[in-house]
Amino acid sequence: MSKEVASSVGLEWRINVSDGTSQVLKPTECRPALSKIWLWLKGLLGGLIVVVRRFLETAWSIAVAEPRKVVHGLKLGLAISLVSLLYYIGPLFKGFGGNASLWAVMTVVVIYESNVGATLCKCINRTAATFLAGGLGLGIHWVADHAGEKAEPVILGISVFLFASAATFSRFMPMVKARFDYGAMIFVLTFSLISVSGYREEMLLKFAGSRLSSIATGVSICILIIVLICPIWAGSELHRLIHQNMEKLADSLDACVAEYFKEDGKTTDSKEDQDYNKKMQGYKCVLNSKAAEESLANSARWEPSHGMFNFGHPWKQYLKIGASMRNCACCIETLTSCLSSEIQAPTCIRNHVRDVSIRLCSHSTSVLKELATTIKTMTKSSTIDILVAEMNFAVQELQNALNSLPSQFIPPELMTVEGSADAKGECATESGMPPLLEVLPLVTAVSLLIEIAVRIGGVVDAVEDLASLAEFKPARDHKRPQQDKTKP
Amino acid sequence: MSKEVASSVGLEWRINVSDGTSQVLKPTECRPALSKIWLWLKGLLGGLIVVVRRFLETAWSIAVAEPRKVVHGLKLGLAISLVSLLYYIGPLFKGFGGNASLWAVMTVVVIYESNVGATLCKCINRTAATFLAGGLGLGIHWVADHAGEKAEPVILGISVFLFASAATFSRFMPMVKARFDYGAMIFVLTFSLISVSGYREEMLLKFAGSRLSSIATGVSICILIIVLICPIWAGSELHRLIHQNMEKLADSLDACVAEYFKEDGKTTDSKEDQDYNKKMQGYKCVLNSKAAEESLANSARWEPSHGMFNFGHPWKQYLKIGASMRNCACCIETLTSCLSSEIQAPTCIRNHVRDVSIRLCSHSTSVLKELATTIKTMTKSSTIDILVAEMNFAVQELQNALNSLPSQFIPPELMTVEGSADAKGECATESGMPPLLEVLPLVTAVSLLIEIAVRIGGVVDAVEDLASLAEFKPARDHKRPQQDKTKP
Repeated sequence: MSKEVASSVGLEWRINVSDGTSQVLKPTECRPALSKIWLWLKGLLGGLIVVVRRFLETAWSIAVAEPRKVVHGLKLGLAISLVSLLYYIGPLFKGFGGNASLWAVMTVVVIYESNVGATLCKCINRTAATFLAGGLGLGIHWVADHAGEKAEPVILGISVFLFASAATFSRFMPMVKARFDYGAMIFVLTFSLISVSGYREEMLLKFAGSRLSSIATGVSICILIIVLICPIWAGSELHRLIHQNMEKLADSLDACVAEYFKEDGKTTDSKEDQDYNKKMQGYKCVLNSKAAEESLANSARWEPSHGMFNFGHPWKQYLKIGASMRNCACCIETLTSCLSSEIQAPTCIRNHVRDVSIRLCSHSTSVLKELATTIKTMTKSSTIDILVAEMNFAVQELQNALNSLPSQFIPPELMTVEGSADAKGECATESGMPPLLEVLPLVTAVSLLIEIAVRIGGVVDAVEDLASLAEFKPARDHKRPQQDKTKP
Repeated sequence: MSKEVASSVGLEWRINVSDGTSQVLKPTECRPALSKIWLWLKGLLGGLIVVVRRFLETAWSIAVAEPRKVVHGLKLGLAISLVSLLYYIGPLFKGFGGNASLWAVMTVVVIYESNVGATLCKCINRTAATFLAGGLGLGIHWVADHAGEKAEPVILGISVFLFASAATFSRFMPMVKARFDYGAMIFVLTFSLISVSGYREEMLLKFAGSRLSSIATGVSICILIIVLICPIWAGSELHRLIHQNMEKLADSLDACVAEYFKEDGKTTDSKEDQDYNKKMQGYKCVLNSKAAEESLANSARWEPSHGMFNFGHPWKQYLKIGASMRNCACCIETLTSCLSSEIQAPTCIRNHVRDVSIRLCSHSTSVLKELATTIKTMTKSSTIDILVAEMNFAVQELQNALNSLPSQFIPPELMTVEGSADAKGECATESGMPPLLEVLPLVTAVSLLIEIAVRIGGVVDAVEDLASLAEFKPARDHKRPQQDKTKP
C-alpha cells in the first residue's frame, strides 16, 4: 500500500554511500511464490550441506585422531556379518529357526560396547538375567497352568506386574545401578516376554531354548571379535587416563607458577602462548574426569587378565587416586585466580619468594611426574621418598622465606626510626597502597602452593597404596631423568 | 602329624585368660566330611541371608526416602500389563500377530527411563531410527533384488557391514553421543534385522509394518503412563538440583566460616555437630553433580511444556550456573584446608578480622540464598542488586581491616622503638613463632573469602542471564526475609 503511494507520488529513498554520492533505493519487487519457495529450498539445502559437511569433518578429525574408533565400528560390522552368516547358510539357519537368528543379531548389536569390560558386563548380565527370568517365568507359568483356566491370566498378570515393578525399582539402588542395571532390564524383558507369550503358545520350553541358544551365539561371536581384534580394555583405558591426568596436573601446576612469577619484560610468540595456555588448563581435565573414571572402573572389574593387569586388579584404588588428584586440581583452580589478580606485590618481595616458590613447584611436579611414571610402568619408584623429602624441604624453605618477610611490612611512618628498615624502604613505599593488601595475592598464592604440596602428599599415599595392593615390582635404578630436567 | 606327636608326648597348649588363670587348648577333632559340608552350607546360607537382608534394608530406606521411585517401578508394571492386554484379549491379538505383541512389550521395557525427557528421547530416537533404517533397508533390498541372485547376498552383506560400522563409529561423535546415541543403535539393529531377514522371507513390507505398528503401540502406552501418572520431569529435576545445590553451597560456606572463627570455649552436642558437619560437606554435592546436571539437561531438552517450563527453556544456561557454582565450591574446598591448619593466628589478629569476615560470609550466603530463591520461584529478585552491593562493601571492609593489620607485624626487635607498637606487642610476641607464618592460614582464609565473593559474582551473572533468557517475572516486594535472618 505504502509502496504504491510512494511510487505514484514520485517519492524516492536515497542513502549516502562512502564516496560522498547518494544512491536511490529501489523497492524490491514482489517475487512470485514459486521463486520464494525455490529460495527457501535453496537455503534449506545449503544449510543441510553445511551441517553434513561439518558432521563429516568432525568424523574425519575423530577418525584421524583415534583410528581405533574406526576399527571399533568395523568390528561391529564384522560381528553382524558373521551372525548373518547363520542366516545366509542354509543348514545352520534350519537348525536355529528364523526368530533365533534375529535374536542373535539383536544380541550382538545390543551388547556391543566401546570397551571389553562394558561388553562383558552386558554379556554376563544378559545371560544371567535371561536364565534367572527364564527359570522364574517357567516356574510361574507351571503354577498358573495348574491353577485352572480362570486363575491363569490373573496369576500371570499379577506376577508380571510385581516382578517388573520390583526389578525396575531395584535399578535405583546404587549397587544394582553400578553393576546390574542392564541385567535388571533384561530380567524384566525376558520375564514379561515369557509370561506374555506363554499364555498363548504352548511351546514355552522351545521358545526359551531357542532364545538361550541365540543369545549364546550372539554373545560368543561378539566376545570373540571384541577380545581378539584390537581390543579396547577398560582397565588399560583407566590406567592411561590416571597417569595422563597426573602428568597434566604436573604440567598445569608448572605452567601456573611459571606464569605467576614470569618476568614482565619476557615476551613469547603466539604459538608458544597457545601451548602454554593449553598446558595451564590441564587441571580442568582432572576436575572433569570423575564420571569417566567411575564408568571405566565399573567396566574394568569385569575384565579378565590382560596386559599388565590381573583379574581382581585393585581398580577401586584408581578412583581414590583420581579423587586425591581432584583435590590438588581444586587448589590449582583457586591458584589460577591469583594469576588474574590486578594487585601486584612489590618487586623485591616477589623476588624474595620467587626462586624458592619455583623450586617448590618444580619439586612438586617432580613428585607428580615420578608418580605418573610409577603408575605407567607399574614399578615401585626408588626415588619417590627422596623426591617427597625434597618437596617437604622446599616447603620448609618457603616458610622460612615467609618468616624473613615481616620486616618488610613496616608501615612507612615507622621506616625512618630504624636504620635497617631504611634499606628496605623502597619496597614498602614503592606505591601508595598499604603493604598487606599489596602482598595479599602473593601470600595467598604461596600459601596455596604449600597446600598443593600437602595434597600431593595425599596423592603419594594413594599411589603407594595402589603399589602395594597391585604388588608393583621394585624399579631398577635408572631414575631421576625428569627430576634433573625440571630443576630450575 | 605334629598333633599326634604332641598328644603322645603329653604336651599341652595353654593360654592366659583375663581372670589370671590359664586354660588348656584342646586340639580340634577331625570332623567328618559331611559335617564340614553342613558347616560350609550354613555359612553360605547365613551369608546369603545377610546379603538379602541388607539389600532389602537399602531398598526399604530408598523407598521411604523417595516414594516416587516405587511409583516409578509400579508404572512400568502397569505399562507392561496394559501392553500384555493386547495379547490376552483375542481380537486385538489377532490383529497384531504374535511377534508384534512381543515387540510392543520389548519397546515398553527398553524405552522406559527414569524421567520423561529421557523416555521421550528414546521414543523419538527409536521411532526415527526405525523409519530411517526401515526405508534404507527396503531400498537396498530392492536394489539387491534386482541385481541378480548371485549379487544379492553380496550387496546385502556389504551394505550391512558398511552402515553398521558407520553408525557405530558415529556414536563416538559428541553431538551424536549426547542426543542420538540410542537412535544410532536402533538404526543398526533395524537395518541389520531387515537386511538379514529380508534375504529369506519375502514379506519385508509386512515385517516392517508390523514392527512399526508394535513400536507405535508400545511407545504410546509408555508415554501416556509416564506423562500422566506422577511424571518425573528431567527439567524440574534439573531446576531443583540447581537451586538445592545453591542452598547447599550457601550453607556450606556459612558452616565453614563459622567453624573457622568459632570461639574455642564453645561446645556443641554431638547431634548438632553431625548436622553441622553435614552442612559443611554440602560443597561436595556441588562438585560432584556435573554428570547428573549434564544428563538431566540432555533429557530436559526433549520435554514439552510442563509446570513452569516452556519447550525451549534455556536448559543449557543451568549448566553454566552449575559450572559457576563449582568454581565457588572449589574455593570452599580449598578453604576447608585452612580449617584443619594447626597454626592458629594470635587471638587479637583473629578478632580483628573475625567480625568483618563473618559479615562478608553472611552477605555472600544472602546473595546465594537470594539466587536460589530467584531460581526456585522463577521471579526476578528486587533485592539482588542491593545484596551484591552489600557483599562488595563487605569485601571492601575486609580489605580495609587487612590494611590496618600491618602495624601488628612488626618484628619484636623493632617493637621497643615505637610507642604505638608497644600497645600491640602482646599480639606479635604471644608465641615464639614469627608473625607472618602464624597468620598465614588466616590471611589465606580471608583471601579465599574475598575470592569466593568474586566468584559468587559469576554465579549472579549466570543466574541473571537465565532470568533474561527464560523471561522470569519481576518479583513482588515481599523480599529480604532471609537476609535479615542471616545478618550477624
